[in-house]
Amino acid sequence: MTTTFPSSETSFVIPAGFRWAGIPAGIKYKDRRDFGICIADKRCATAAVFTQNQFAAAPVQLSRQVLERSVGFAQGIVVNSGCANAATGKEGLQNARGMAAFAAAAFGLDSTTPLLVCSTGTIGTQLPMPAIHAAVDKTVAAASASATAFMDFATSILTTDTCHKIASTSFQLDGQEVRILACAKGSGMMQPKMATMLAFLFTDAQMDPIALQECLSHANERSLNCVTVDGDTSTNDTAILMASGSSGADTSRSHAREMFSEALLQVLQSVSKQLARDGEGASKLIEVEVRGAHDFISARSCALAVANSPLVKTAVYGRDANWGRIAMAIGNANVPFQVDNVTISLGDLVLFQAGAPLPFDEAEALAILTEDFVRINVELGTGAEGATVWTCDLTERYIEINGSYRT
Amino acid sequence: MTTTFPSSETSFVIPAGFRWAGIPAGIKYKDRRDFGICIADKRCATAAVFTQNQFAAAPVQLSRQVLERSVGFAQGIVVNSGCANAATGKEGLQNARGMAAFAAAAFGLDSTTPLLVCSTGTIGTQLPMPAIHAAVDKTVAAASASATAFMDFATSILTTDTCHKIASTSFQLDGQEVRILACAKGSGMMQPKMATMLAFLFTDAQMDPIALQECLSHANERSLNCVTVDGDTSTNDTAILMASGSSGADTSRSHAREMFSEALLQVLQSVSKQLARDGEGASKLIEVEVRGAHDFISARSCALAVANSPLVKTAVYGRDANWGRIAMAIGNANVPFQVDNVTISLGDLVLFQAGAPLPFDEAEALAILTEDFVRINVELGTGAEGATVWTCDLTERYIEINGSYRT
Repeated sequence: MTTTFPSSETSFVIPAGFRWAGIPAGIKYKDRRDFGICIADKRCATAAVFTQNQFAAAPVQLSRQVLERSVGFAQGIVVNSGCANAATGKEGLQNARGMAAFAAAAFGLDSTTPLLVCSTGTIGTQLPMPAIHAAVDKTVAAASASATAFMDFATSILTTDTCHKIASTSFQLDGQEVRILACAKGSGMMQPKMATMLAFLFTDAQMDPIALQECLSHANERSLNCVTVDGDTSTNDTAILMASGSSGADTSRSHAREMFSEALLQVLQSVSKQLARDGEGASKLIEVEVRGAHDFISARSCALAVANSPLVKTAVYGRDANWGRIAMAIGNANVPFQVDNVTISLGDLVLFQAGAPLPFDEAEALAILTEDFVRINVELGTGAEGATVWTCDLTERYIEINGSYRT
Repeated sequence: MTTTFPSSETSFVIPAGFRWAGIPAGIKYKDRRDFGICIADKRCATAAVFTQNQFAAAPVQLSRQVLERSVGFAQGIVVNSGCANAATGKEGLQNARGMAAFAAAAFGLDSTTPLLVCSTGTIGTQLPMPAIHAAVDKTVAAASASATAFMDFATSILTTDTCHKIASTSFQLDGQEVRILACAKGSGMMQPKMATMLAFLFTDAQMDPIALQECLSHANERSLNCVTVDGDTSTNDTAILMASGSSGADTSRSHAREMFSEALLQVLQSVSKQLARDGEGASKLIEVEVRGAHDFISARSCALAVANSPLVKTAVYGRDANWGRIAMAIGNANVPFQVDNVTISLGDLVLFQAGAPLPFDEAEALAILTEDFVRINVELGTGAEGATVWTCDLTERYIEINGSYRT
């Protein structure tokens, strides 16, 4: 018996060249998949983005080193939930290395095989290494290229998440099918500055590591880096994209690169919305779109200021069209604009324009706020760039969850 | 019958040279003092700090203009709660001017008399000017230099506050008594960048406007600007310090200036702690002290990162010694440090040192977190400067209050 989670996507495409497993290791909870592994058939071009938090966790430090030494190649990922292995000093770094070494030995790989490590859970506690060692051995028999095995892997990274975050897509390139499959976790401590807490992306496209990293970094800026639940950036944020090349489709030409980039962005944006919708305690998904900014970074800063305001988030929760709080948040965003040029709308309902409030129908506003997907639109009126971010409302349940997470 | 609020301070010193009043005007709630006035016997040297929010409210815009034109003198302050008069366009600015004009006429003052205006409450609604006009006339009879009249004034600015924030002090200067008296309001939308939502300070010290502004700005950086409830900076933040000179004590010499500055800081820090303790839904006052930073600004940024983290605030609420969240928040503060030099303590209990967690007694941690005043201490180990900020825990009650404030 293991805890099960509802899945947003029941069918997905599976890129060739990978095997996955996810099993219960008893790291924090009993009877819950909390240890996972992905092993590729051979070394894959691999791109990754990591947290910018200065207290970066041991697995983040290790994975950065591994990718640097291998110049952008990896053959697998070892993951666990229930313990973040962050702020754990030298012992923590040794334990992260231990996780990779156990996995290499168990799968009969050379000890120099580049394997990445990711952990998520409580900060400041050490990993139970005997339990990890036992778990690694069990994954060898479990590892498979099946949908079930991938779902087990996707389950093993969840913490306060209430559902899976999975997205996939495929496209034809020179008569060959290229697949991208992603899973992610993250529900609180969520304002990724480089990536979400954990996101894993697998593709059978063929691409060199530098091009792959460019594709991931670009898509990441417009997807995972546009998600916030509570403005807190985790010590463990990591997104990894592995390209097995098993589709045989070459994405080195610029047209093929564009197709791949577009498909990747689509998958990552889907995952991002799923993460925001499942924010801790969330009852609604909120999309904040800012247009008319000088540049993308300003637009995103402004959108994040709105999305991070506890007052905006509680107003949406309370179905209160208190747009003055949106104005307040924009005013704090440190981006240039003139108040007289700003337009604030809730869905299609314009509430503030030309420097003054507009009369609006409270019943119409209430209807918009009763939906479980709420759009806030801000036109700054100073430039041509825009950005969209996703967040959730702030409810009593967030307090309940986080007032009692560790104990 | 009007709503009453408990007071933190039942006796206080009253500086000479001022009269106050606070009465119910029916702006938002029935039977609640929501309109107030302070009139000085003559024009006073006046210092002020205002919000940095780009959506600065009409009364903030007006008060800035008035002080600029009068070169640092004012004879009174007109205040209301229940309507912030922010994001209200030209009509809002006219209404703010109207409040001042009504007051000048009612008190028989020249229409060019510099009067400041402050509003607090819902953003984006216009002031009910007939009600304001009627209220102004009633304050003429009510205005008095009594403690009761001052308390009525202090009551008239409260919104979601559950108690008064009042502090006062006095000191002897050349045989004359100099008094400072302050009242403030603010419970949510609280991370003042220049001042708290509203704070009014009165003194009978004699000081020129430039020196007075220096004293206020200096003290403000180490008091009101060190308070956060939810990281949201209001459109209406204003702190005003009026010096009547009625004590006859001259504070122009450097020794006297220092005595005054010290007394002012003491009063403002008391008010700041009272504001944090009464943060919306708060059950605990949290003091975050950061030492060992390169400079005051870095130390304060780091302390604010901890104080603004919803995860730290919910952990304190849940009496959970989850210090990893403090590490996470420090790591996001964008201030320079080495993880190995950082020490994190809860009260006197050291939890993280020399790059690794320390074993600690959970019962001792629980005892510390059961108090209603919780101290978090961070030593960065990179410099000699420090800062202290005050905040409160994040509880379900914050969500309840803000999910239903406007409606």
